Parts: sequence; structure tokens; C-alpha cells
Amino acid sequence: MQFTSEQRLDDGVLEREFTLGEIPGILWTPGSASAQAPLILVGHPGGLSKMRSRLAGRARHYAARYGFAAATIELPGSGERPRLAAVEQARTDLRRAMVAGQPVGDEIVDALVLPLVEKAVPEWQTTLDTLLALPEIGGPVGYEGGVISIGIRLAAVEPRIAAANLFAGSFVPAAMYEEARQVTIPLQVLLQWDDEGNDRQAALDLFDAFGSKEKTLHANVGGHAGVPQFEIDAGARFFARHLS
Amino acid sequence: MQFTSEQRLDDGVLEREFTLGEIPGILWTPGSASAQAPLILVGHPGGLSKMRSRLAGRARHYAARYGFAAATIELPGSGERPRLAAVEQARTDLRRAMVAGQPVGDEIVDALVLPLVEKAVPEWQTTLDTLLALPEIGGPVGYEGGVISIGIRLAAVEPRIAAANLFAGSFVPAAMYEEARQVTIPLQVLLQWDDEGNDRQAALDLFDAFGSKEKTLHANVGGHAGVPQFEIDAGARFFARHLS
Repeated sequence: MQFTSEQRLDDGVLEREFTLGEIPGILWTPGSASAQAPLILVGHPGGLSKMRSRLAGRARHYAARYGFAAATIELPGSGERPRLAAVEQARTDLRRAMVAGQPVGDEIVDALVLPLVEKAVPEWQTTLDTLLALPEIGGPVGYEGGVISIGIRLAAVEPRIAAANLFAGSFVPAAMYEEARQVTIPLQVLLQWDDEGNDRQAALDLFDAFGSKEKTLHANVGGHAGVPQFEIDAGARFFARHLS
Repeated sequence: MQFTSEQRLDDGVLEREFTLGEIPGILWTPGSASAQAPLILVGHPGGLSKMRSRLAGRARHYAARYGFAAATIELPGSGERPRLAAVEQARTDLRRAMVAGQPVGDEIVDALVLPLVEKAVPEWQTTLDTLLALPEIGGPVGYEGGVISIGIRLAAVEPRIAAANLFAGSFVPAAMYEEARQVTIPLQVLLQWDDEGNDRQAALDLFDAFGSKEKTLHANVGGHAGVPQFEIDAGARFFARHLS
């Protein structure tokens, strides 16, 4: 890992850009860390520069108010990273189906999401190895955000992840419902009730499928980008219960 | 209103039992009130002595940690209060239908709940008049708990109620879905995902029906009595956003 920039923000949080091999990322750590900080991995749908201010808002709240470290990396095939041919093809097929008003078939959803999960999860795990080796970061680790299928796989296979705050999203492959049953860590699931691009019943079915004994659904009025501000703190408090 | 007992609890909260005409109730006020405290009306399914420790747990958290006053009254036809013949009959019909494994018809649900709503809502309003006249209590006012149909009617007709934290429950008359559309105040709705006695889809439909622009559903794993401890504080924080 190479740090490529470093900035002390006005809330005392240290924001560092890094590259891990070819993967760009950002790390936020609290200004006054007495002990090793728990770590939140902050997921997103891809396009780090576009998502940056929203991600930084959450990460800085976590770091400044709760003493958590938070980190994000670019998704495979997004931002400045080389495109994934199969995913690009699926995206074209998806767009064509939606423009034509046709139902989006399982094969399109699988082609769109599964290669991303396959590639992104090991990258998150490598990131985790590297970040946990830094002296200022300790366990335990939480994951939050979308792509929800990546969160499901990580929660199912990565034992260092102790809790996850997942954002419901559209286009979840059928196979991920099976994987959701394997997830047993505490979960919070955020659902935008009026998300035009998201099948509400499918999201409720997915919440139902998770094997976790502690799982909470937070459903809020509004569209995909309308997550209320207070959910940032609700997420932090969820992690505070499980990571502190 | 007559206070019939008064006790200073170890968290500094003042707990007073009262009667308002024939209606028994309990009022909790914060130990160190600098200004007039906002008020939370704490609803319940009836049977104050049976419910008391659970209600006091929430009320004392609100008073001690957030500086809210909280009050509850006995439901019509419950506890020491005279039975309501029509409601008792509906209860018998309900039990008979459930034992026989028959569906519970709309007419049973209406007979069980509507007279209770008709009688309880004006009682809550009289209680509100009386409590708001106390020097230590000011507005604004929140309502929380069940019976959800009582909460819906109160939220729809009582302009002094500024926010409501409603507990989803079974047996909601069809007419209440229409009233729910009239509700426009900020809402939080608590749903136990595996509540045996509660139709999950009906609860989701009711959440969908509310007219409020800010509404949040908190669904948690577990049965009717399994509401997680952390939801007490989530309720308090919801009220803190809207009543402070």
C-alpha cells in the first residue's frame, strides 16, 4: 500500500488517499486515537470520485464522533480502473431491456453482478489485511453500503467482519439469497421505500432470508438517493454496539 | 387530576400515580428540569399493572436521559376499569374463531378495536389538556406504543401531537388504513418480523398507507415481546429530533 496524499481535516480526521497495487482507495482515521480504532469498510456502487463527498460525510462522522477508522476502495471496472468486458456487456443488455420495457432476466442480473462479487470480495480482503497491519487500526471490522451482493458475500465468507450495515439495492442474483442464509453476523439493512429502481418485495424477501439472529430493517420514505441524514448516525450507533 | 402517590427514583426521575376522574395513570418527570419538558404519551395494550415495569423502563430512559416527561393511562375496559360489554363479546368471538382455526373476520376486528379507539382517544386528549396545564410540562407532544389504531386516530385528529413512534400490532380495522392516509406527522413504526400474532404483510401495507413525508420502519427479528433493548433509545432519538 502506498499513501499518495494526506490531509488533516477541520474535524481533526486524517484523510489519506492510497493505492493498493492498481486499486485506488481512501482511508479516514480519527484525530485523537488513544487505542487502535475499529475499522468500517465503506462500500459503494462504483465511481469513487463521484461518490466521494457522500462517502466522506459518513466516514468523517464515524471517525470524528465515534473514533472509528473508515476506508473505501474503487470497485473493479469502475472509475479509472480498466473496464470488465462481461460486466459492460451485461450493462448494455440491461439498458436495452429497460428501454424496451422488457423484464430484466436472471441471466442479465447474474452477468452484471456475479463477476463483480467474484473480483471485489478478494480485493476487500486484501485491503483488510493491509489496513489491519497499520498500527493505528485494530479489529473488529464492519462493512457498510452497497453493492449489497458484495456485502452479503463478505459477511458470509470473511470471519473478521463482525457486523454489516447493508444498503438494499436492485439486481440481486438469485444465488445471493442462498448466500444470505449463511450470514449470521448482526445486520442492519437500509431500504428506501420508494426507490424506483428497486423491487421492494425482493428487498423484503432478502431481509427475511438472512440467517442472522440480530437483524434490523430501517425502511425510509423516499427514492434511492433520499436516505435521511439521521441514518448516518443510526449506522454509527449500530456499529458502536457491535464493534466497541 | 389527583396525584395519589409520589416517589423519587434513583435516577432522579419523579414517578407519580394519578387518577383523572375514574382513569388511573402514571406520570414520570425528569429530576432536573430547567425548562418545561416535552411530553411523551406512552400507549399500551391495556392492563397497567401488568405492563408497568416495561412502560416505566421506557419512560425513565426518556426522562433521565433526554429530559422528557412521559405519561400513561389505563385503557377503557382494562385493569381495574369497568369492562366494555361489546369489546368483551368481540374478545370471546375472537378466541372462539382462533381456537376453531377459522379466519378472524372483519366484523370481529371492528367490534374489538373501534369502540376502544372511540373511547380511548378523547381520554388521551383530556389527559393531554390536564398534563399540559402542569407548570413543569410544555409542548410539543409525542405518542408512542400500541394499540396502533389508537395511535393512528390520535395522530390524525390531535394537532398537539407532533410525532409518533407506533408499535405494529395485529387486528387493525380496515377503516384505520384510510385514517392512516390522513396522518402527516413524522412517524417511526416498530415491527417485530416474526410476531406470530401479527400479519407481517398487513403491517407493511399499513406502513405504506401513512401519509407522512417522514416515516421510518424499524423491523427486528423476533416475536411480539422480543423488541430489542436498543429500540428504546432509537425511539428516544426519534423524539429528540422532533420534540426538542
